[in-house]
Amino acid sequence: MNLVIEGGVVVDAERVIWDGAVVVEDNRIVFVGDAGEAKRRFSSAGYDRVDARGKIIAPGLVNAHTHIAMTLLRGYADDLALQEWLEKWIWPFESRMSPRDIELGALLGSIESLLGGVTTVCSMYHYDPEHNEASAAARAGLRIVMGVAMFYWDEEGSVSRVRDALSRWHARDDLVRVSISPHAPYTVSPDMWRVAEELRREWSARSGVPVTITSHLVEDWDEPRLVRERFGVDIPDGSIYKYLDGLGVLSRYFVAAHSIHMNDVDFEVASERGVNIVHNPVANLKLGMGIADVPRMLRSGINVGLGTDGPASNNTLDMFETMKVTALLHKGSYRDPSLLPAKKVFEMATVDGARALGYNDLGLLREGYLADIIVIDYRKPASMPLFNIYSHLVYVFRPGNIDMVIVNGEVLVEDGKYSKMDVDELVDRASRRAHELAGEVSGGA
Amino acid sequence: MNLVIEGGVVVDAERVIWDGAVVVEDNRIVFVGDAGEAKRRFSSAGYDRVDARGKIIAPGLVNAHTHIAMTLLRGYADDLALQEWLEKWIWPFESRMSPRDIELGALLGSIESLLGGVTTVCSMYHYDPEHNEASAAARAGLRIVMGVAMFYWDEEGSVSRVRDALSRWHARDDLVRVSISPHAPYTVSPDMWRVAEELRREWSARSGVPVTITSHLVEDWDEPRLVRERFGVDIPDGSIYKYLDGLGVLSRYFVAAHSIHMNDVDFEVASERGVNIVHNPVANLKLGMGIADVPRMLRSGINVGLGTDGPASNNTLDMFETMKVTALLHKGSYRDPSLLPAKKVFEMATVDGARALGYNDLGLLREGYLADIIVIDYRKPASMPLFNIYSHLVYVFRPGNIDMVIVNGEVLVEDGKYSKMDVDELVDRASRRAHELAGEVSGGA
Repeated sequence: MNLVIEGGVVVDAERVIWDGAVVVEDNRIVFVGDAGEAKRRFSSAGYDRVDARGKIIAPGLVNAHTHIAMTLLRGYADDLALQEWLEKWIWPFESRMSPRDIELGALLGSIESLLGGVTTVCSMYHYDPEHNEASAAARAGLRIVMGVAMFYWDEEGSVSRVRDALSRWHARDDLVRVSISPHAPYTVSPDMWRVAEELRREWSARSGVPVTITSHLVEDWDEPRLVRERFGVDIPDGSIYKYLDGLGVLSRYFVAAHSIHMNDVDFEVASERGVNIVHNPVANLKLGMGIADVPRMLRSGINVGLGTDGPASNNTLDMFETMKVTALLHKGSYRDPSLLPAKKVFEMATVDGARALGYNDLGLLREGYLADIIVIDYRKPASMPLFNIYSHLVYVFRPGNIDMVIVNGEVLVEDGKYSKMDVDELVDRASRRAHELAGEVSGGA
Repeated sequence: MNLVIEGGVVVDAERVIWDGAVVVEDNRIVFVGDAGEAKRRFSSAGYDRVDARGKIIAPGLVNAHTHIAMTLLRGYADDLALQEWLEKWIWPFESRMSPRDIELGALLGSIESLLGGVTTVCSMYHYDPEHNEASAAARAGLRIVMGVAMFYWDEEGSVSRVRDALSRWHARDDLVRVSISPHAPYTVSPDMWRVAEELRREWSARSGVPVTITSHLVEDWDEPRLVRERFGVDIPDGSIYKYLDGLGVLSRYFVAAHSIHMNDVDFEVASERGVNIVHNPVANLKLGMGIADVPRMLRSGINVGLGTDGPASNNTLDMFETMKVTALLHKGSYRDPSLLPAKKVFEMATVDGARALGYNDLGLLREGYLADIIVIDYRKPASMPLFNIYSHLVYVFRPGNIDMVIVNGEVLVEDGKYSKMDVDELVDRASRRAHELAGEVSGGA
């Protein structure tokens, strides 16, 4: 479908056009500029027209680290120490989830994401050839980079699942890419890291579409000790980044979630190798893991995207909230209100996140870029007056301001409603199944 | 109007009733219990009935520190150092605001509050006998404790405005009370503090309705020095609380906003005197002021309410967000996920806040309490499944989940829409005026 979205405030991380328009043909943006020019140049009957007056036209948000299938565990357990939370609650629940449950949770998470203005997720979970996070996201219309997890206790299975996913799902269509996801340094052997990097190179070349490696790095402070003890390896300078660099695995196609506990050498190596970091402030705070030094990452020239992490530790997939908490947290921890200004945070949540995931045609409103676009209605009591677009994008807007969502040129949300499937039925079904899996009836829900 | 709200999950800080009901007669709650019992006991035609199946029935949220008129400055200036922000942006804008502008901003802020499930605010701003925050809130239907500011550079005017407000507005009707608001220790002379306390006692006795004193305490770290230098007084043990206690002003009717930089003596004195503290985490972080030690306040037995602060430094009046940031921030800063559990945070945002403001019949769903009630729709993709009500109240819900809002027995919001006035017209008018006051046209808005 060809579409002219006109009369709104066009904004991305690079510019603001107050009376602007964006034109979409098929799945690409073909024009960004003044509404008047769009009217003249794209006037034929071949274009559907969207009146965006009183609205903001922006690139969709990129949730660069999450686990969307975990919607089924939303609020299942909170306010607990990490090990108790995992061992007594999260893992037992997950052990009962089938591939179809994962697909169901991911479908709910996909629709929550879209309704909140998120058009791309990088999501990591257990993989099944048929029923997985990518099958769900593609059905919902959401763009997904599907991380396929690898663990040291199942090396063979991990490698074969990654190969299977790459052959079946990577660049299968416009919406889906696969990321190789060695879970974390303390759960992945040195050999597996090398295999992961080989697979990344092999499949990037074969498909012509970049494959990334995504992992959780230094989420906890004693990761170097754990890795040393478990795998009998040396962690040079106590730096997990230097250790991984020694395995040849770090590159600009490496995406490190969290990275809360980096030392000086970690910063140096991450910066030199062009590693991308994804900051997940809500989950990091909620689990009491610490505060990642994002201002220093940015000063070091590291590309930083933003993520919600999974809904068991957040408990939402709300990237507006993640943007605001990012802006607040570092101003607060440095006692410097000028840090992480709104425009930079919005950039992190759009084009920086897209770049981290290996896209060079996503996250900005620019001719030739993928048509992932959100339209935001700002004429509400809680979001007026409007002086500065970036300020509102980070400090004011909520999922409730989302009016329209387009992914890959397809209109998925209109007037704030998702239209591709019966949402109420899905919500009921996912909720019922979540309570069955919890093995309890909490009544009322 | 008499009302039966039935079939929902009834929750307050003390209990959860899964298939519950709340009955309202005039402005009071007359029944809280099982839906079945409500059906039997309140079946006459004299009751309107609200079907709350699939919804949560909760006490309205109490925003215990804000400046609702400052909606007009929402997003006017951000990401700046405090003094530049105040001197170059906020104060010049405010100097152009008339009493009618204050009333207009407060009206917008009242409606934003109600749509976000806030039923009581304590709001401090410049006072005019006719056009002020209370006149706006009362018109909107919002319960307000109006703080009337006092400053050392206008002692006489300050005292006469406080007297005027007390006589005209305090307990004028069910919705309005007045709080005496010496702005802060560094802007209020020792004599003025004594006068404030005299007025508090005098008017509490005269009206039979408690008058509170609200102020900003130790928001910045060098407040003791400022006070010492400006007023030539001794600050014993470097403790602002001890200094104020020496003036006889601290009591359980004293409400201290912020209190970020408390020393050991401050904690002791605050606890001994029963002072209430209102925590404003979003604004404190955004302005880079530091992190108040809320876990220690609670350990010390201090009653702590929550506030958004004004929309110029937040940039919303969203108490759901403030609850979540409160829960996240202290888990993060202590690295202990068990701190500030969801139930306690909800208690702070309801009954603890109400208690801080001098109410003993507000903030719980209990027979005889004031009928300030919110109904929350949880059957949405972003808020299902539902396992634990308190978890969802703090971590998941957004203003967009608000279905119904009742204040003092009056239904103000239905199906998420405010019905007492034309909201679109108000939003347009407030926005136009805000741009006039800013002395610029930022186009598009």
